[in-house]
Amino acid sequence: MMRRIYFHRDSKRGAIGTHDWLLEEIGELREALKEESKKALEDEFADALAWLASLANVKHVDLDKAALTKYDSKCPKCGQSPCRCTF
Amino acid sequence: MMRRIYFHRDSKRGAIGTHDWLLEEIGELREALKEESKKALEDEFADALAWLASLANVKHVDLDKAALTKYDSKCPKCGQSPCRCTF
Repeated sequence: MMRRIYFHRDSKRGAIGTHDWLLEEIGELREALKEESKKALEDEFADALAWLASLANVKHVDLDKAALTKYDSKCPKCGQSPCRCTF
Repeated sequence: MMRRIYFHRDSKRGAIGTHDWLLEEIGELREALKEESKKALEDEFADALAWLASLANVKHVDLDKAALTKYDSKCPKCGQSPCRCTF
């Protein structure tokens, strides 16, 4: 969906510029954690995911596939679900 | 899936601590943009999405629903797909 809506912009801006925007949204998300408004928080999560997807598109990475390959229903470090890592 | 694997840890750590980890992954993602290895880049995208989902779980936000509510098949600012915003 993000590709349909924004790829023409994202690809022109490139990866570093798109990561700049992602970083900005991650910062806004941190501020929103302190707010009382659930809607404001949901908006910031939406933006964070949107920009992460935009960046994945610019780098031709399938975000879903990458996540499900690494986190294949268990912790990639200890192999368990729930995770039983000891640090 | 992230809830099943990690919620017991994420909820104890809390939102700010989880956001700290998310921020670290976003930084690693930026470094990975410069690397040649596609696999390394895919891993960092996986981690970024995983930590964003972890944070959403800690805050009881449905990440999918938040994104699809805001980006309902069109740009939330101009209402078009592809986006036709002029800045």
